[in-house]
Amino acid sequence: MHVPSSSKVSQPRKADKFRIQTGNNRSELTVVRADRSLPPERLESTELSSDRNLTRHALQPRENRWACLGQKPVIAWFTGLSGAGKSSIASAVDRALTARGRATMVLDGDNLRLGLNRDLGFSAGDRAENIRRAAEAARLMAETGLITIVSLISPFRAEREAARQIAGDVPFLEIFIDTPLAVCEARDPKGLYDRARAGRIPDFTGISAPYEAPERPDLVIPTQDRAVEDSAALLIPELLRLSALERA
Amino acid sequence: MHVPSSSKVSQPRKADKFRIQTGNNRSELTVVRADRSLPPERLESTELSSDRNLTRHALQPRENRWACLGQKPVIAWFTGLSGAGKSSIASAVDRALTARGRATMVLDGDNLRLGLNRDLGFSAGDRAENIRRAAEAARLMAETGLITIVSLISPFRAEREAARQIAGDVPFLEIFIDTPLAVCEARDPKGLYDRARAGRIPDFTGISAPYEAPERPDLVIPTQDRAVEDSAALLIPELLRLSALERA
Repeated sequence: MHVPSSSKVSQPRKADKFRIQTGNNRSELTVVRADRSLPPERLESTELSSDRNLTRHALQPRENRWACLGQKPVIAWFTGLSGAGKSSIASAVDRALTARGRATMVLDGDNLRLGLNRDLGFSAGDRAENIRRAAEAARLMAETGLITIVSLISPFRAEREAARQIAGDVPFLEIFIDTPLAVCEARDPKGLYDRARAGRIPDFTGISAPYEAPERPDLVIPTQDRAVEDSAALLIPELLRLSALERA
Repeated sequence: MHVPSSSKVSQPRKADKFRIQTGNNRSELTVVRADRSLPPERLESTELSSDRNLTRHALQPRENRWACLGQKPVIAWFTGLSGAGKSSIASAVDRALTARGRATMVLDGDNLRLGLNRDLGFSAGDRAENIRRAAEAARLMAETGLITIVSLISPFRAEREAARQIAGDVPFLEIFIDTPLAVCEARDPKGLYDRARAGRIPDFTGISAPYEAPERPDLVIPTQDRAVEDSAALLIPELLRLSALERA
């Protein structure tokens, strides 16, 4: 019986991480290189957690998978109020990227709660766990090279920052789907604001629970008076660029 | 604001699901078509769970993603005792498939417990939840078209059957890594049997907790006197076949 050697673990490589900032005219984008430190943890690393009797198993270098897919991973994390347009824009970005031959996945908050996170409720602890698991799932997706779009209200800065930490050295773009509460409430596509105003949904973000807008999002997409396709178009070029694999 | 229409939901298609059975000579494989009913639930479907205020968001047809990847998904679920060789064989299969241009991922039990499942312990409930989340993660991977190898002791038949249900209509192969307890204990690559015999690990599968061998596994891989590469070779052709995308 041969045990996989950890000697084949690939060397860490510097991630291409960029920060997109919006100017006063928010449809203008400026790309600025971000300077974030890279957490040392890597899925390929071998690690002993003897206190829990766990051994991290070395997998093949993730670069093998990326080469196979012909792209590198990016995590695009959409945050915003219910009804802001996160899912619609995520879906439009997803379809556009697939049409251009990029392998993608969308991790949608509601969909996750009907599957991976179906055991979770809406207590503060469960909401944090909901976000943690979405981030861990996104990281697993990223390991394979997929462009992963996470669409999740994720109202708290600390939890979004925790998600970024989980992403490790994978480029992580925090995308603020910026729609005023009044507009979301007027749209109310799922009738949730009505129910929340009637007191039938406790701790509803924007009504009876806080939403902390990102202070330094990688991209702001204001959706008011902007079609979904136009909103998606603000992000697509950057995802294409970040996921492009340099050929040797 | 346009809401994605659910009219683009793709029609369910009959899965290619096969059962590989081993004869008395376990290195001989017979392939028999399995006849499992297809659960109706699909990630692309739109679904209202108004009691939990959740709306399943329609994503693009998964066939788009599969066409982009040039392959179809398969879930290969490895079950067996600690030390049976699951992770080593999973890694060998994974590398071989990637070398042949197939996009793959390994969800390893220990690795998951250091990430997605790091909040879980080893109580009966937590073990079941560990398996459920692995299955849900595998299903998300399968949505993208990846060949996903799950390597998890998963000692109970009912939990493995639940994992198969979660996989829905994605081909799900239950692979029994069949290594006698005495051999696993003699290998004891992580020193866990020693600790378990000394009473320092409670409920250790095979020592102080039961292992229910599969009654109708899709493939049995006896590892005794068989090199890892040879064990992997028993599975690789079937994964290549099931993941092949028919070109129109």
